[in-house]
Amino acid sequence: MKCSKCGSKAIYHQKYSGLYLCKECFIKDVERKVRKSLGKKIIKNNMKIGVGLSGGKDSVVMTYILNKFFETIPNSEIVVFFVDEGIKGFREVARKFVIEFCERYDIKYKIIPLKEELGITLDDIVKIAREKNITLNPCSFCGVMRRKLLNKYALKEGCNYLAIGHNLDDISQAIMMNYIDGSIEKLVRLGKDAEHPLLVKRIRPLKYIPEEEVQLYADLVGLKYQKEPCPYSSISYRAEISEIIDKLEDSHPGTRHSIVSGFEKLIKHLDIKMEVKTCKICGEPSSGDICKVCLWMEKLGLRV
Amino acid sequence: MKCSKCGSKAIYHQKYSGLYLCKECFIKDVERKVRKSLGKKIIKNNMKIGVGLSGGKDSVVMTYILNKFFETIPNSEIVVFFVDEGIKGFREVARKFVIEFCERYDIKYKIIPLKEELGITLDDIVKIAREKNITLNPCSFCGVMRRKLLNKYALKEGCNYLAIGHNLDDISQAIMMNYIDGSIEKLVRLGKDAEHPLLVKRIRPLKYIPEEEVQLYADLVGLKYQKEPCPYSSISYRAEISEIIDKLEDSHPGTRHSIVSGFEKLIKHLDIKMEVKTCKICGEPSSGDICKVCLWMEKLGLRV
Repeated sequence: MKCSKCGSKAIYHQKYSGLYLCKECFIKDVERKVRKSLGKKIIKNNMKIGVGLSGGKDSVVMTYILNKFFETIPNSEIVVFFVDEGIKGFREVARKFVIEFCERYDIKYKIIPLKEELGITLDDIVKIAREKNITLNPCSFCGVMRRKLLNKYALKEGCNYLAIGHNLDDISQAIMMNYIDGSIEKLVRLGKDAEHPLLVKRIRPLKYIPEEEVQLYADLVGLKYQKEPCPYSSISYRAEISEIIDKLEDSHPGTRHSIVSGFEKLIKHLDIKMEVKTCKICGEPSSGDICKVCLWMEKLGLRV
Repeated sequence: MKCSKCGSKAIYHQKYSGLYLCKECFIKDVERKVRKSLGKKIIKNNMKIGVGLSGGKDSVVMTYILNKFFETIPNSEIVVFFVDEGIKGFREVARKFVIEFCERYDIKYKIIPLKEELGITLDDIVKIAREKNITLNPCSFCGVMRRKLLNKYALKEGCNYLAIGHNLDDISQAIMMNYIDGSIEKLVRLGKDAEHPLLVKRIRPLKYIPEEEVQLYADLVGLKYQKEPCPYSSISYRAEISEIIDKLEDSHPGTRHSIVSGFEKLIKHLDIKMEVKTCKICGEPSSGDICKVCLWMEKLGLRV
């Protein structure tokens, strides 16, 4: 097939748009959509964008594209944050990818070891929970902890925004899971950033890019990233939802886009605002009196 | 297994609650939930409830239970509306079920033949659309047309409410379809009744009763209803969504309830109000200047 845009040899069929795209037009298409989703309010002078870079394909592609956009804009920059949770045999590899990537593209970066923040690694936290027979989902803990640390450092560095590498598949799955669970609070938190001087506004530059295209972009551009999954990853419910959405996308191309765009319309009309408090233990922003990380640390007898 | 409530022999395992129920406790459970979903604002003196009765299991069970509730309440009554769309070999059977049912339980009823309302049957409408090569989904047309007629007659009869026999499966499917399509307007229309003097408020007494339980209730009580599906029914997309929700309900009992209760919470916080106009052709309430039925009739050259 020929590229629907330029007539060269197509390498990708974008079912939801009906287009066939060649390598160059595919790359342009991804970058154009990322640029559009950010808009002129973000891609402009005097911007500092914090970027959460894990070393996986999504955050690597996001950082690469953001760097491409911002390296030519005067007085603007991106700064990478890598949280090293302390997962033996896994995070050292990611760390190496992240450092090599940032040095290659001359991007400022900051490594945030959990050991320095909480005095303990995720491996040890999981071990202690097991020893004490306390149910702890490493992914849930890691999620709130990373969110907290990324915000803390983005604020410290004076970032205007914090970019997170969720792709279209991730976001449509999260929306669907919360629709099904009927969790209004989680839906609001997913769609609206609470306004607070201690919270850096989050952006999701890849929110309209399907995972398949993020992967293809990385491969076509020749980006290196960590391929193996986290040893703690156990995403059975999410995998179930992912399978459902994949199937629907297959029979009705555009399903993921309509889930996300419908949700964005919906959330604009919701009259719920999330309250933001400051954690009585660590002083970081929190939805409750004590933030979830400090609650866990207390529960595990690891109060810092 | 023994009934979790009374210790008799259980005939049903209600997975989402964990209960085993005997025949009597099952029937009580269904009726208690219908009563609760209606509440004391509806089950009281001086009420007139219009009931859309199609002759299928859902509306038969709904009408039977509503009649049971209202027959002992002074100055309150239910009145059945049966729309005869004119579907040869199908609606005559339904009509017979409906008349026998209403006469057996001494319920006032009104037959509304489409032929008298629009001067034409659904069969002829479908035929004309085919002859003129106009794409018309009989189910969509029938849906808006029945909605319009039920409202018209409920208003004419002075009903305080109009009861529709949608069960938990129907409603969770509709919600999920609209979440996936991202149709905010349809979600609002599904969850909130527009306020207008020409619109009778709709209630869905079976909204928390799974289809499986409606079926079992009908069989246990010995209700007769039309079993064959409408010859026009072609619900491929709905069937796909239904299959997905059935599978999720199976692996996570309670999914349907959480979809519906989450949606009800969500809709309360939506600041969208549907505008209600009156159709310039027929004078009935409509979301546009001309109602969907009149639009269709014009398109088919059947303007009344």
